[in-house]
Amino acid sequence: MSMKCVVSTEHQQKHYPESFLVNGITQDNPEKPVRVDMLLDGAKKAGMEIIEPLNYGLGPILRIHDERYIDFLEYAYKRWSYIEGAADAVTPNIHPVERNGEYPASVVAQAGFHMTDASCPISTDTWESALWSAWSAVHAAEMVLDGDKAAYALCRPPGHHASADMAGGFCYLNNNAIATAHLMKKYKSVAILDVDLHHGNGTQSIFYHRSDVLTVSIHADPRRFYPFFWGYASETGDGAGAGYNLNFPLPRGSNDEAFLDALDSALERIKEFSPNALVIALGLDAFEGDPFAGLAITTNGFHEIGIRIGGALDIPTVIIQEGGYPCNELGSNLAAFISGFENRLI
Amino acid sequence: MSMKCVVSTEHQQKHYPESFLVNGITQDNPEKPVRVDMLLDGAKKAGMEIIEPLNYGLGPILRIHDERYIDFLEYAYKRWSYIEGAADAVTPNIHPVERNGEYPASVVAQAGFHMTDASCPISTDTWESALWSAWSAVHAAEMVLDGDKAAYALCRPPGHHASADMAGGFCYLNNNAIATAHLMKKYKSVAILDVDLHHGNGTQSIFYHRSDVLTVSIHADPRRFYPFFWGYASETGDGAGAGYNLNFPLPRGSNDEAFLDALDSALERIKEFSPNALVIALGLDAFEGDPFAGLAITTNGFHEIGIRIGGALDIPTVIIQEGGYPCNELGSNLAAFISGFENRLI
Repeated sequence: MSMKCVVSTEHQQKHYPESFLVNGITQDNPEKPVRVDMLLDGAKKAGMEIIEPLNYGLGPILRIHDERYIDFLEYAYKRWSYIEGAADAVTPNIHPVERNGEYPASVVAQAGFHMTDASCPISTDTWESALWSAWSAVHAAEMVLDGDKAAYALCRPPGHHASADMAGGFCYLNNNAIATAHLMKKYKSVAILDVDLHHGNGTQSIFYHRSDVLTVSIHADPRRFYPFFWGYASETGDGAGAGYNLNFPLPRGSNDEAFLDALDSALERIKEFSPNALVIALGLDAFEGDPFAGLAITTNGFHEIGIRIGGALDIPTVIIQEGGYPCNELGSNLAAFISGFENRLI
Repeated sequence: MSMKCVVSTEHQQKHYPESFLVNGITQDNPEKPVRVDMLLDGAKKAGMEIIEPLNYGLGPILRIHDERYIDFLEYAYKRWSYIEGAADAVTPNIHPVERNGEYPASVVAQAGFHMTDASCPISTDTWESALWSAWSAVHAAEMVLDGDKAAYALCRPPGHHASADMAGGFCYLNNNAIATAHLMKKYKSVAILDVDLHHGNGTQSIFYHRSDVLTVSIHADPRRFYPFFWGYASETGDGAGAGYNLNFPLPRGSNDEAFLDALDSALERIKEFSPNALVIALGLDAFEGDPFAGLAITTNGFHEIGIRIGGALDIPTVIIQEGGYPCNELGSNLAAFISGFENRLI
């Protein structure tokens, strides 16, 4: 499989979350616009050219997300800015215990309703970037629907922690779920393989009751790692979706070998599922030098991960960028994965 | 009815939460130790003497709260202090969407599991103060069980936002629910009347499925006011508890007249319920000069509220202090309520 293009647009660089909360301390947010530059460098290194996504409207997004949530994302910042003395970005405070009570009118409370955590501030440009990030995902899916064997969308902000109606972990719109739903205009079944350092809890929740989408995630053990509440091996799907969710929590600091072992098992299950198409939620933060320091994958490890995924299934594939944070090797790790996936040398 | 004592202890003044979150901005926390001094001044003005509560152990607390939550409150600060570079107080970040999944091992995640919002930091002295606050409530209940017609516990920190397993809104242990459970050693049915500015969501949730405890709350409309997700008139109880919860949300800025109208309706329902005992969750933050500025009750209004409650039912009554924040009249408002309740002049 060979990919000529990386789908990306400058709109995705406008969102600039300044901080997030780590153990009660406000810290510099690593989900920065510069990530796009670093990843574009890697994409160029892998021989790709930039292609701009089209505007696909809200249709493809509303296949995954609730209308009320989309309204919140689009208008929350403006409504928040009317509050005297409020922070520069929409920030959650109080969270509902159950989600079936009254929906509050206050944007402060809606922020708690629609956010799992304190890492998704909404500023003036957030909606624009999230929207174009989703459209990049749709564009890559379109390319595959039009006949490309594979396509890569450099989605930023990332998406896999966002559920149908909640932001979380730097994610607002679930780009890989949106790409999946778009592929299902043509394909009856899709597998999503998430190799991000963090469990793809948003994606899992969106498809948890469905048997036509197999969701598989390999990630650092959530017992003491974000997202904490999800990503356990015991979560295997529910109802019609029972057996169609698979989690591989790895001990902190796991290296290439442990990751590739889990990957082989993941790919076995995916082959057994025999999907019509594949979506890769490509986080690069499992890297040994990533600021989150959760796992210890090497650059060669990402190449090998690419080789095994690319070699396992000969089906249309959409690759969606998820996490991976500023470090010298971020671009190289993308290039390593892509070249592996295309079965070329790094 | 006449009360000679205010139940209180210096242990309750040790907890010192420094900040809370208002519209995304960290602000000075008004739930300060000095509240106790101000309220004691008021109690003295009403002719009361201080009596120290006994240590009642965890028994009376575990009638209301989950053991896992109590373990969390007791040990969270110590566990948190092992995290390098963490904040000075346990602070929530990520919250579960549902509460039936895996219980995470990390204290960071447990904080999100056990807190609805960012206003309940746990520091070195929090558990001690919360425990003695609950014991003050138990002590007042004991006095009533021993024959006093009424007793007042100056509980601090407050309790009515705390549910069986969650802290929220400055509250850790639900003192009025604990007093209620203690009264039920002898009495078959108890009514709880909450006149705090904020809806008593913790208390409501604890008794929501029970018909032997009637919960009634008069408060500022939660559509745009804390606790946002609870306190609507539509919440009337569930299962066996259907019809045994009653909320009176009042428009922001409502004055004495509107409050007293709601109070008359509340007391009618309580008389109809015909409980063996009454618990008053006495917030004084509905005051026109309270920093939260939600309602506009006057000092005379609190006196009249006391008169109507004291005159409505001739049953054993435990009065539990809830909110009411630093302002010149805080003590006077307590004295006004107490003297009204005892049917004396201010």
